[in-house]
Amino acid sequence: MLSTLYKDAMTPHLPTVALPDESASYLKALEEATAHFFQQQEAVMQAISPETLPLLEAIAALSTGGKRLRALLAYWGYRGAGGSPLHQDAIKAGLAIELFQTAALIHDDIIDASDTRRGAPSVHRNFEAMHRERHYKTDAATFGVSSAILAGDLCLSWSEMVFSSITSLTATSEARFIFDLMRTEVMAGQYLDVVGEVVPEEEPDRALERAFNVIRFKSAKYSCEHPLALGGALALQLEHSTRSDLLEGYRAFALPLGEGYQLRDDVLGVFGEPDTTGKPAGDDVREGKRTVLTAYTAQKATPEARKLLETSLGDPHLTAETITQLQDLMRTTGALDEVENLISLKSEQALTQLAQLPLAQDVRSSLETLALKALHRLA
Amino acid sequence: MLSTLYKDAMTPHLPTVALPDESASYLKALEEATAHFFQQQEAVMQAISPETLPLLEAIAALSTGGKRLRALLAYWGYRGAGGSPLHQDAIKAGLAIELFQTAALIHDDIIDASDTRRGAPSVHRNFEAMHRERHYKTDAATFGVSSAILAGDLCLSWSEMVFSSITSLTATSEARFIFDLMRTEVMAGQYLDVVGEVVPEEEPDRALERAFNVIRFKSAKYSCEHPLALGGALALQLEHSTRSDLLEGYRAFALPLGEGYQLRDDVLGVFGEPDTTGKPAGDDVREGKRTVLTAYTAQKATPEARKLLETSLGDPHLTAETITQLQDLMRTTGALDEVENLISLKSEQALTQLAQLPLAQDVRSSLETLALKALHRLA
Repeated sequence: MLSTLYKDAMTPHLPTVALPDESASYLKALEEATAHFFQQQEAVMQAISPETLPLLEAIAALSTGGKRLRALLAYWGYRGAGGSPLHQDAIKAGLAIELFQTAALIHDDIIDASDTRRGAPSVHRNFEAMHRERHYKTDAATFGVSSAILAGDLCLSWSEMVFSSITSLTATSEARFIFDLMRTEVMAGQYLDVVGEVVPEEEPDRALERAFNVIRFKSAKYSCEHPLALGGALALQLEHSTRSDLLEGYRAFALPLGEGYQLRDDVLGVFGEPDTTGKPAGDDVREGKRTVLTAYTAQKATPEARKLLETSLGDPHLTAETITQLQDLMRTTGALDEVENLISLKSEQALTQLAQLPLAQDVRSSLETLALKALHRLA
Repeated sequence: MLSTLYKDAMTPHLPTVALPDESASYLKALEEATAHFFQQQEAVMQAISPETLPLLEAIAALSTGGKRLRALLAYWGYRGAGGSPLHQDAIKAGLAIELFQTAALIHDDIIDASDTRRGAPSVHRNFEAMHRERHYKTDAATFGVSSAILAGDLCLSWSEMVFSSITSLTATSEARFIFDLMRTEVMAGQYLDVVGEVVPEEEPDRALERAFNVIRFKSAKYSCEHPLALGGALALQLEHSTRSDLLEGYRAFALPLGEGYQLRDDVLGVFGEPDTTGKPAGDDVREGKRTVLTAYTAQKATPEARKLLETSLGDPHLTAETITQLQDLMRTTGALDEVENLISLKSEQALTQLAQLPLAQDVRSSLETLALKALHRLA
């Protein structure tokens, strides 16, 4: 039964915009490595107690879907720095990053009280449902959250376990340093996000500054800059603090790419269709997510409209009508345009930097395809 | 201000039963390494945003107190296998294990809805209080839990960061394998514990089996067996799957030690004074913790008394009177005696095995001191 689950979970979600064959081969190898890893862990969990298997099942199920953007960036970062095709180290790095992402999503969904993820119930909701089905005692929601905290912790440890199995790594590798910094930044950035949702009304400039910090640390560096640099550092077997022009160039490309990617995500969080986002329309508004888009809107709105925005953000019972009203507000204030302009600017920066990187043609075109998919959220 | 906090946090809590000087020196070196590590991370967090510092402060504050049993076992495991005194690797291993413990405590306290830890408010309660003090918006308790989830995640990553900075480690080291397995077992064991609190009334034998599994994986292996073996493996620079008589011997000593240690903890959770445990008397009963002690009691109680036990476990509003009633029940059924006998048996097993280990006298006596302190919870 579990093996079937892995198989389903691991069916590669190949993009419909054609990726070069090598990307497809990498994704396939990544899925195989993922399935193999889960099979190994199943044996470990069985030995502890079969009762613990739901933790593994939850992690495996959430590992399905997803665009594997981070793994692919790590892979092409590796290849662009001279790493050989489909090398084990690059597969392990991709798996480690994707497991970290799964762990982050599990805990994010608890924090945001999200019911759905990738079109399916979030992990804590799944455990909550299990509690009801099995007629467990006490509170189902509490059990759901407790179990999901543990599933996220387990997945976080597994991510590290896979990362440290990369044989070329040493205690002083730049790749190790990047992986560590990435994790600290994601958690700190996520905390800033949480704080942004609870601080009393503040100067729009202050809110904007925080929103840009959240984008940078929770998302842009994590989703684009660090994976690409990590792959490069791994192939170069770079020691920490050693300067590398290639890595600098990678970062100059991937940071604006990541910023544009997250700004696109923020727009989709308000304007996106459930088919694209896997979440109900306007979900970010109901969750009270403070973004560059909401900060611009607050900056430009009349006092009255700003009040509507402030009282609506974080209201879980918001009607579709108010969502539409807020969407209009974001349009008429020009805030949406401003974010779209920013996305264009970041895209341009990223692509200009990419053009200057000393890369073989197949690497460059793979990175370009990835960048365009990230910025435009093509399937 | 932060530096003061670290200083306070890092004041070594030296046991009042004299430890050999070398243990004291190790604890001092460990505290210095801890303070140094937090200072480094403070710079990283500052660079992200000063708003993120409360995460670091929460982790640093919780890193105070504690008996450092795990770190000391790792240290003497290292020394007993020929490692040199106060070696950096042993200090880093101890710090990594203690940071893992801090992370586990932060998340445990959310799961158990514990208000206090080591005599102070738990981390989620601290963030909840901060929310109120700063007049943040929305729900204070939710903010507390979200922030504590992130603080635990950050601490978990930091634990790993320190562990992987051990220069003698490779991807195939036995010490790395032990550290990874330990984490999986703790989280799986903790999940079993959570399940134990919600499953509908079941056969006492089944409950007893789960309680023993929880003890083994969440506690005994983690708190004693793995740290000692890890220290040994590190000093021997053992490759994974290589047989080592010394490590087998370590495990034969430290597993029963850990079981006895946890059984003692379970008794204290019901009968312990707040001064000793840092928690209100009977806290485990209010939390609904299912232990070997409660399983034995259920096994031996009359149907009526068993019903009282079942309805009391997990009732947060339990009166001191009912706690006393339950304590009496545990005494009169003989369940308490049975657990005490088991502790004696485990102690004996552990000490017999220790006597057979091929160790220098200072190592043996240090381990014996540690074992006795663990089993009797001397300060």
